[in-house]
Amino acid sequence: MTDQRGQAQSGEKVTVGIVGASGYGGVQLAKLLAEHPRTQITYLAGQDSAGKKYGELYPQLSQAVDLPILPVDVEQIAQACKVVFLSLPNGIAYDLAPALLAKGCQVLDLSADYRFRSLATYQSWYRPTQEGWPLPAHREANAEAVYGLPELYRDPLSHARLVGCPGCYPTASLLAVAPLLRQGLVEPDSLIFDAKSGVSGAGRAAKVSSLFAEVDSSFAAYGVAQHRHTPEIEQICSDLAHTPITVQFTPHLVPMIRGMHVTLYATLRDPGLVGDDLLTIYTAFYRQSPWVKLLPRGVYPQTKWVMGTNYCTLSLEVDSRTHRVIVLSVIDNLLKGQAGQAVQCLNLMMGWEETLGLPRLPFYP
Amino acid sequence: MTDQRGQAQSGEKVTVGIVGASGYGGVQLAKLLAEHPRTQITYLAGQDSAGKKYGELYPQLSQAVDLPILPVDVEQIAQACKVVFLSLPNGIAYDLAPALLAKGCQVLDLSADYRFRSLATYQSWYRPTQEGWPLPAHREANAEAVYGLPELYRDPLSHARLVGCPGCYPTASLLAVAPLLRQGLVEPDSLIFDAKSGVSGAGRAAKVSSLFAEVDSSFAAYGVAQHRHTPEIEQICSDLAHTPITVQFTPHLVPMIRGMHVTLYATLRDPGLVGDDLLTIYTAFYRQSPWVKLLPRGVYPQTKWVMGTNYCTLSLEVDSRTHRVIVLSVIDNLLKGQAGQAVQCLNLMMGWEETLGLPRLPFYP
Amino acid sequence: MTDQRGQAQSGEKVTVGIVGASGYGGVQLAKLLAEHPRTQITYLAGQDSAGKKYGELYPQLSQAVDLPILPVDVEQIAQACKVVFLSLPNGIAYDLAPALLAKGCQVLDLSADYRFRSLATYQSWYRPTQEGWPLPAHREANAEAVYGLPELYRDPLSHARLVGCPGCYPTASLLAVAPLLRQGLVEPDSLIFDAKSGVSGAGRAAKVSSLFAEVDSSFAAYGVAQHRHTPEIEQICSDLAHTPITVQFTPHLVPMIRGMHVTLYATLRDPGLVGDDLLTIYTAFYRQSPWVKLLPRGVYPQTKWVMGTNYCTLSLEVDSRTHRVIVLSVIDNLLKGQAGQAVQCLNLMMGWEETLGLPRLPFYP
Amino acid sequence: MTDQRGQAQSGEKVTVGIVGASGYGGVQLAKLLAEHPRTQITYLAGQDSAGKKYGELYPQLSQAVDLPILPVDVEQIAQACKVVFLSLPNGIAYDLAPALLAKGCQVLDLSADYRFRSLATYQSWYRPTQEGWPLPAHREANAEAVYGLPELYRDPLSHARLVGCPGCYPTASLLAVAPLLRQGLVEPDSLIFDAKSGVSGAGRAAKVSSLFAEVDSSFAAYGVAQHRHTPEIEQICSDLAHTPITVQFTPHLVPMIRGMHVTLYATLRDPGLVGDDLLTIYTAFYRQSPWVKLLPRGVYPQTKWVMGTNYCTLSLEVDSRTHRVIVLSVIDNLLKGQAGQAVQCLNLMMGWEETLGLPRLPFYP
Repeated sequence: MTDQRGQAQSGEKVTVGIVGASGYGGVQLAKLLAEHPRTQITYLAGQDSAGKKYGELYPQLSQAVDLPILPVDVEQIAQACKVVFLSLPNGIAYDLAPALLAKGCQVLDLSADYRFRSLATYQSWYRPTQEGWPLPAHREANAEAVYGLPELYRDPLSHARLVGCPGCYPTASLLAVAPLLRQGLVEPDSLIFDAKSGVSGAGRAAKVSSLFAEVDSSFAAYGVAQHRHTPEIEQICSDLAHTPITVQFTPHLVPMIRGMHVTLYATLRDPGLVGDDLLTIYTAFYRQSPWVKLLPRGVYPQTKWVMGTNYCTLSLEVDSRTHRVIVLSVIDNLLKGQAGQAVQCLNLMMGWEETLGLPRLPFYP
Repeated sequence: MTDQRGQAQSGEKVTVGIVGASGYGGVQLAKLLAEHPRTQITYLAGQDSAGKKYGELYPQLSQAVDLPILPVDVEQIAQACKVVFLSLPNGIAYDLAPALLAKGCQVLDLSADYRFRSLATYQSWYRPTQEGWPLPAHREANAEAVYGLPELYRDPLSHARLVGCPGCYPTASLLAVAPLLRQGLVEPDSLIFDAKSGVSGAGRAAKVSSLFAEVDSSFAAYGVAQHRHTPEIEQICSDLAHTPITVQFTPHLVPMIRGMHVTLYATLRDPGLVGDDLLTIYTAFYRQSPWVKLLPRGVYPQTKWVMGTNYCTLSLEVDSRTHRVIVLSVIDNLLKGQAGQAVQCLNLMMGWEETLGLPRLPFYP
Repeated sequence: MTDQRGQAQSGEKVTVGIVGASGYGGVQLAKLLAEHPRTQITYLAGQDSAGKKYGELYPQLSQAVDLPILPVDVEQIAQACKVVFLSLPNGIAYDLAPALLAKGCQVLDLSADYRFRSLATYQSWYRPTQEGWPLPAHREANAEAVYGLPELYRDPLSHARLVGCPGCYPTASLLAVAPLLRQGLVEPDSLIFDAKSGVSGAGRAAKVSSLFAEVDSSFAAYGVAQHRHTPEIEQICSDLAHTPITVQFTPHLVPMIRGMHVTLYATLRDPGLVGDDLLTIYTAFYRQSPWVKLLPRGVYPQTKWVMGTNYCTLSLEVDSRTHRVIVLSVIDNLLKGQAGQAVQCLNLMMGWEETLGLPRLPFYP
Repeated sequence: MTDQRGQAQSGEKVTVGIVGASGYGGVQLAKLLAEHPRTQITYLAGQDSAGKKYGELYPQLSQAVDLPILPVDVEQIAQACKVVFLSLPNGIAYDLAPALLAKGCQVLDLSADYRFRSLATYQSWYRPTQEGWPLPAHREANAEAVYGLPELYRDPLSHARLVGCPGCYPTASLLAVAPLLRQGLVEPDSLIFDAKSGVSGAGRAAKVSSLFAEVDSSFAAYGVAQHRHTPEIEQICSDLAHTPITVQFTPHLVPMIRGMHVTLYATLRDPGLVGDDLLTIYTAFYRQSPWVKLLPRGVYPQTKWVMGTNYCTLSLEVDSRTHRVIVLSVIDNLLKGQAGQAVQCLNLMMGWEETLGLPRLPFYP
């Protein structure tokens, strides 16, 4: 850590690489890290796009990022970069991260691979049974990995070598519910997360279900009662409540590119609590969190209000007729829900300001 | 009633008028009634648009509907029309409907005015205190009005002179929940309707909040814990359950023109019920309802699948981990949620086939 | 022809098949032919989708069209259908059509294969050099094929066995320019067609460039100076002008699903012509054409005004400063630009009303 | 000028005010100037919104800009600000600018008021006849005003006190055509600008024609042969060509919030010129212009590629069949087409780097 801190204070730039640079997550990382005052992109790797220059793939970025896209090579990455962002399909980082750690890199993984404390849970939701898995190296890396949600794990992140960055749905959901669970304010089995996401969450893969003519002018649920972000949300909820928690989580697809909105319903234990009480509690809970913003009572967030920023913006309402609290939570799914949060984690790992290099003002209208 | 039935059987066309023809509801009515084999539009009235021809306002419809738009005049309406559709802002139909009934017209009101059995409930949500209201004529008309949801009130509709057509949110919500409440399958205080609507529900009024640059690429909740469709949903839920029911209802705005999706959460009384059981129960419940369509297990509806049709399409999922049933319900908010349902009611009032003149195949893609 | 006419007059339904039923063109045909009063769909064929039922692929249509999708088999098609619509990628119909004609079917091809009088022109734009092509059967079929633009080729279509249905861009462009060329009103080398199309024109293939996240909120040109609809437009323009004509044609992609707008610029030969003169000329030219609609002076068409209809709606403006006429032409690219026009051709081939079974009122808003 | 330069070099911030801060132009200015390293916003004024705090109007910006919105008061503005941006409806700046100049402010006007060298031209397109107009003060201010297109008027801008910032259409059009006219490469009467704009260009006014339900899924032309940006384009084209030029300009509305695409057609004088020649000429012409980007041959710009940036991105194609050059030009209508260009002008006026504080990397996807 000393070196990092020293380096951070010296003002030199930290060399960073992006593995999986051609997807939407990769592009966000490329933009953020190109504009970040303390990082220098020195390595881009991709699978299908290897061999091209980045500016051929994305002519609109050629003025700022025009490195060649290389095949994935641990040795070369480690020589070129101090820090590596892995923005790959689930299942690939599991081998790559331990190898990079062994070479002295710090790793931020944006896939699901290192988000789960329990390898069994990870395996049951993400990985077909496979003999000889996990290897000892997988176990070790997993034991070391820190869940990359800074508002809840700020301290361990400041010492992390390997970060499992949260999914977009868990980020918006957990920031909505955390104060309620930490303070024991709601019935634990009453949590319902009704989530709505822009389409970029599905990535840049060519799929009929992501075509403009299919998505535009339509709205639908998917993965009802079985989406893979459910166990991730439950793991952290259980942490917060110090008791196992089961939640209802329903994702929906919104005909828009970016943005995520979670509507959380929970039954209050104390029906005497009013909205102002809860706003006070949330304000205190997030006092040290520069990327969480609480709206005044009666103002409800639009996803557009955080588009292009790293904010999670929250609003609270108490329904005295039903004794429920309703929390509205919005993020930009590609920033606070993905690349922005990874950079926020990097800032903590490096001992920099948590806000450094991250966009504050939304893209509007 | 004999006359109506007789007229219906004779094949002659019924004269119909639309008061409030220039809004989105009015345009839908104009299109449906122009294409309906048994109706002839003989009167169009509007407020701001009076004095123009319909084809000036909507050049795209001039080939089919090109009557002049007249000021609202009860005497003239009654001379020109057997049936009158009122598509006006809330509060205006309350006086207009009794006057038209007195002249022998049948009236279908698309506003909130005649949806509530209890005038006090209507007044508390919709009408500022006003001395001398309601008049005896209002009470009489209200006592006679039938709630225009054919799937639940088919018989009274077949004898109705005055129909209070449901709102779009109540339509999608009530068709989702009706079998559960009628059969007593769920905890009555567990109902949460998380609703998402296209923007046309806000009408054609010039408002900043409905501008393209505000709505597009964004998603937000509104009216949390206080939307005026809540008491309408509760009234019919209480009817179905034979006990007063309080519900959670949260509307959201989706960046699309048409379509509505309701995600209903309810806790099952019998945790042993599985999805197939519920599908059987729903199928039986809606056997006589040609405009309700149940999807096979595991298929979730997109709003696009009903766009341009009068269907309400439903899908059911049971989460055995949380003992909840989740019902997904989609409608075209301007058809089954508004003008189409009004025509469906007209078909019943006239003794015609319930499906007559209503579109079955969606506008896709 | 006697048989057809006889059949048409008798009121019996004509059996029709759709080969390539699973794409956007196929879906439009399925909807139109299912609702057409004189046709019965008896055969659906597809390539990737063969083996499924149509309602599995499109649950929203299962109430109306639920035949199995079969592999393409000429013998079976000919047994099942009197008329066959081919909605396939370019290059496949060339073999299929002669085989179906030989079995006694009438064929409407929606691809480019039979649109060109000159096989050499077709080959140079669409077909890689291939030894032994064309075969005599190709030549014969091509010689017999009629270009399926009813407004210009109404008579030959009424006797046609094989129709090469126009592309969407040529339809909107040619209807905009036809009266000008037929009357010799403009400089022949001055024609510029600046065309804008909704995304469904690219079909239902899974391509990155058609993803929602790529298309939404963006606008771009493509195929500048080299789009394959250029020679098709030029062939018919040359026909109209009785002299070879070269045109400028530039297509653009609009972030919307359906609709096409062509802005035509042409220099007037007689600078004294005013807008009213041209409106008179256009009105006379299209007097017998029920699917062309001319707007009053100063009213410009929105693509939405024809969405869901078979209309081509035109508006004219003369700029006295530049001596140019500007014609605005809109169609629904999937109806008048594709499936609707094919049904319009079928109506002519069968001796039915040209408007039979085709939608007149737009889907609005 | 000495003071300004001195101030600029010292690193102190320049005080700036925005009059008309609540519209879309005002919001862009607020964001850009809040993030600009050398400016400090000290004054916000508005008409309808006066009396509110900025964060009430735009909760999403409250973390960065939360000044009160004041009524327009020349005295107060001049005390608070060194530089004033006027983002008001046409016609208001005409009086305001001379008053502010007299108080020692520098003024950048985003309306049409100071774009025209000829007051008569301005008056005939923008201003109803009015006795006593223009006053001497108007004439003086107009004589001093510089047209704020830095790529063409860089030198005069560096000494300007009053800048008339160009409209969005002229910006995209003039940057597309400038090298052709300056070098005399095209027939002067052949220029056709077919322009397509996102909807935010119409501002934040509540109008039916700007409603989501009207604009989405539709495309249309407007102002054909009579749009008010025509004389503005012609004025600068004539400057470039040293001869009076008349152009064809047709604007269209695209269903997207931001972005503008101009397709320019012009007939080449020398039919031997090829695309590479023109690319060389354009590259030389814009060598000193950091905000103009030329794409490689065969790559056509998407408006999305400049969204959120101050770039104008160009692509060239020569059609050897028609002897025309086609230039594709894209900008973000609210940045390079409005607020970004105004800040670019400010940078020049202050002697700062032309790129200072302006976004380079697009908002994508």
